[in-house]
Amino acid sequence: MFQSIAFDEYQLNDTRETIGRTITETDIVLHAGQTGDFFPHHMDAEWCKTQDFGQRIAHGTLIFSVAVGMTATVINPLAFSYGYDRLRFIKPVFIGDTIRVKITIADKKDHKKPDFGVVSERLEVLNQRGETVMACEHLLLVRRQVENIQHRTSDIQHQTSNIGH
Amino acid sequence: MFQSIAFDEYQLNDTRETIGRTITETDIVLHAGQTGDFFPHHMDAEWCKTQDFGQRIAHGTLIFSVAVGMTATVINPLAFSYGYDRLRFIKPVFIGDTIRVKITIADKKDHKKPDFGVVSERLEVLNQRGETVMACEHLLLVRRQVENIQHRTSDIQHQTSNIGH
Amino acid sequence: MFQSIAFDEYQLNDTRETIGRTITETDIVLHAGQTGDFFPHHMDAEWCKTQDFGQRIAHGTLIFSVAVGMTATVINPLAFSYGYDRLRFIKPVFIGDTIRVKITIADKKDHKKPDFGVVSERLEVLNQRGETVMACEHLLLVRRQVENIQHRTSDIQHQTSNIGH
Amino acid sequence: MFQSIAFDEYQLNDTRETIGRTITETDIVLHAGQTGDFFPHHMDAEWCKTQDFGQRIAHGTLIFSVAVGMTATVINPLAFSYGYDRLRFIKPVFIGDTIRVKITIADKKDHKKPDFGVVSERLEVLNQRGETVMACEHLLLVRRQVENIQHRTSDIQHQTSNIGH
Amino acid sequence: MFQSIAFDEYQLNDTRETIGRTITETDIVLHAGQTGDFFPHHMDAEWCKTQDFGQRIAHGTLIFSVAVGMTATVINPLAFSYGYDRLRFIKPVFIGDTIRVKITIADKKDHKKPDFGVVSERLEVLNQRGETVMACEHLLLVRRQVENIQHRTSDIQHQTSNIGH
Amino acid sequence: MFQSIAFDEYQLNDTRETIGRTITETDIVLHAGQTGDFFPHHMDAEWCKTQDFGQRIAHGTLIFSVAVGMTATVINPLAFSYGYDRLRFIKPVFIGDTIRVKITIADKKDHKKPDFGVVSERLEVLNQRGETVMACEHLLLVRRQVENIQHRTSDIQHQTSNIGH
Repeated sequence: MFQSIAFDEYQLNDTRETIGRTITETDIVLHAGQTGDFFPHHMDAEWCKTQDFGQRIAHGTLIFSVAVGMTATVINPLAFSYGYDRLRFIKPVFIGDTIRVKITIADKKDHKKPDFGVVSERLEVLNQRGETVMACEHLLLVRRQVENIQHRTSDIQHQTSNIGH
Repeated sequence: MFQSIAFDEYQLNDTRETIGRTITETDIVLHAGQTGDFFPHHMDAEWCKTQDFGQRIAHGTLIFSVAVGMTATVINPLAFSYGYDRLRFIKPVFIGDTIRVKITIADKKDHKKPDFGVVSERLEVLNQRGETVMACEHLLLVRRQVENIQHRTSDIQHQTSNIGH
Repeated sequence: MFQSIAFDEYQLNDTRETIGRTITETDIVLHAGQTGDFFPHHMDAEWCKTQDFGQRIAHGTLIFSVAVGMTATVINPLAFSYGYDRLRFIKPVFIGDTIRVKITIADKKDHKKPDFGVVSERLEVLNQRGETVMACEHLLLVRRQVENIQHRTSDIQHQTSNIGH
Repeated sequence: MFQSIAFDEYQLNDTRETIGRTITETDIVLHAGQTGDFFPHHMDAEWCKTQDFGQRIAHGTLIFSVAVGMTATVINPLAFSYGYDRLRFIKPVFIGDTIRVKITIADKKDHKKPDFGVVSERLEVLNQRGETVMACEHLLLVRRQVENIQHRTSDIQHQTSNIGH
Repeated sequence: MFQSIAFDEYQLNDTRETIGRTITETDIVLHAGQTGDFFPHHMDAEWCKTQDFGQRIAHGTLIFSVAVGMTATVINPLAFSYGYDRLRFIKPVFIGDTIRVKITIADKKDHKKPDFGVVSERLEVLNQRGETVMACEHLLLVRRQVENIQHRTSDIQHQTSNIGH
Repeated sequence: MFQSIAFDEYQLNDTRETIGRTITETDIVLHAGQTGDFFPHHMDAEWCKTQDFGQRIAHGTLIFSVAVGMTATVINPLAFSYGYDRLRFIKPVFIGDTIRVKITIADKKDHKKPDFGVVSERLEVLNQRGETVMACEHLLLVRRQVENIQHRTSDIQHQTSNIGH
């Protein structure tokens, strides 16, 4: 769904939360297949038994990709996702864990281009026990409020929006 | 392949480069399927024709995940990947573009735990024209040189190593 | 996103339309792999050249599944999807065609259970030329208006809702 | 395998049964990925525990697609699959359930084109306990008996046959 | 479909041919993902341009696996597939090539167990120009003719049959 | 990683061993999907319970493909993989088994082309109990020692190298 949200409409400290998703053995096997990372931490159940964590763990890039995907429900043509800061893997995610994502508008800053501001969304990935397993800050360049957004939305924004997903 | 590399063995400014990989329509469809992000930027060729970029673009999380996977060739049991900084999507990656990753040891720092140091690897993803399309810094907590690494490698390291991949 | 919509809130002739999605060779190969239907109509480009349609065509079950998935944006805990009527494959969908779905509230009927009514949604799948390629009627058993939906939503509805997707 | 079966050769009430197939967690994850339907009924094991059905259930479109695929063993160039009637999801299919399909020639009717008739196959999907979990009627437009089928099979039939799969 | 075929029923020099299947970019990407073989011969279109073959080539194990799968149409409970001899990759298979398999009963031999014989099926994989791209010999241990196969088929055969597929 | 290894550098009886990989239900479902082999030995858990082996078994072509992929760590531009001999499926591989591959340089032979020799690698696939479940001989045509390999490596070798993977 397309929904235009201007820089001025983002409210600091607003939060929303996604529905949940269980991370399965299938997700890990598919992610190894997509990335080529077949490290035994993810793919060798026998070797994992000899380690303290005791079982296979999901790739960090899997949890990050799924978490970002879970937040991708509304297409904002005024916002351009250009990166992430402070991506941290805090706890391992095991097969069968269920994650959900809490999104907080953590910061709003001016940008050198006067028509734009920078919104920083804090993403926290929580497991079924409410523990934070991953966190990062998602950086969005967002057009400021305009009288008639429909007419002024430039193609430049469209061109680059969402490559960060 | 397992290969122990201690903190002291990482040389600042050392670089290595991966082989290449062509990003295909299949990769994008599979990544949408893994993440649930079916935004038209990635999935609707007709809508993309109406935008300045003119064609479907790869998800940022796809390029990040594939790039990290391309660097995952040697398992270092002394290193623990715990996060990424300054992940930036610099240029769009289109279907048929071929990427490779250049890795540079960009920084080495002490850590509060005296047995460890922090290594920062800079990842740059280049396309077939040599343009940087993505960059980030990969943070590794690495055990310092020890007389007999085989005996002193603690299970704690093993426990957490590589969840950042 | 969960959103409770009671039977009485569905408005006859209301329509909504999804965003688009391009049907790719990947989708067909994955659908063959999921269903085991490797018929040459879908999988043998050489044989298709000898037929009047001249090229590979998407499985009907692929178009139906994708179309239903494209409409699955809001989880209505008051509605239970129990079937489809008059599913018709009207035109072939080729690799590279882009489809979108138009949903119309086509019918509302009483049900023998007094607390429920039957809503019939008409799904029309359109290609990039606006041609209808598939159509069907989606049958929903929906709880009637209640004073306090939050409290009265029975587990029985939850139990069965959405198995039709 | 290609095998020409004319309208007159279909015998009312003839039945055949497929071999079985176990529906796995993998099938559900792949189907979510193909369709974009990540509803918690299919993907969130924790949420499902709070519902009466207690566990994740297969998408209706998955069971339908797999069931139709299971029946796709013989390519009849004289038959054109054009739709389905009365598709009903009768019982949930859980991870680990094994389904098979019983096909019955349920009806034969004239068609306005004198060279063709309409065959209605009833598909019943049974689980490992013999319970019917899904049912539908598959509609086939089939060429009538001809003296020399090899020569008279028109390209028009070939053109459209099987898009219903 | 289950169909019992005893050793004595296999006729030397009998041949059958499968329908065709086009090898797609998707197949190669999925096979890399399943096997972990991301060699540039299969995955790097730019590097392939610098080689004499000029384009990506399918993995040999992909062609072998697909070819064996294409022959798997009838389940013979009297036969046990235990291996392959002289598997040769004769010509590269490129994206878009369409393959089919010709199967010839190439040899029949006694086995030390008097109730069994060894059948050797020759598999030849042909592309759309009729060129042989792969060949191998499939070895089957098959029970000899018996008065009443239904009663004498031992569970031992069932136990191991088809692990060669 | 590219690494040139000439015929004369292969040492008879040298061995190496890969890391391990657990064969999952996902691998089997994906392999059925890639090959079209949905035989009940692999896909019908209920039928398998009625057989002596008691549970689903991995396709032979899956184990072969994964095993070959597991050995594909170094790209030798001087070697051309052209086939396999004596591929044997010795024990079934079940869901949850973990395999690794032991590679031995089993034979070195002259070739009619004086610049080349034939290297035969013996591949043995072992499960977590150390049992050999599959074995085969991998045939490599390898260029002999040359004064300056970098300059003399012919494009003809590049053209065909690795199609056996």
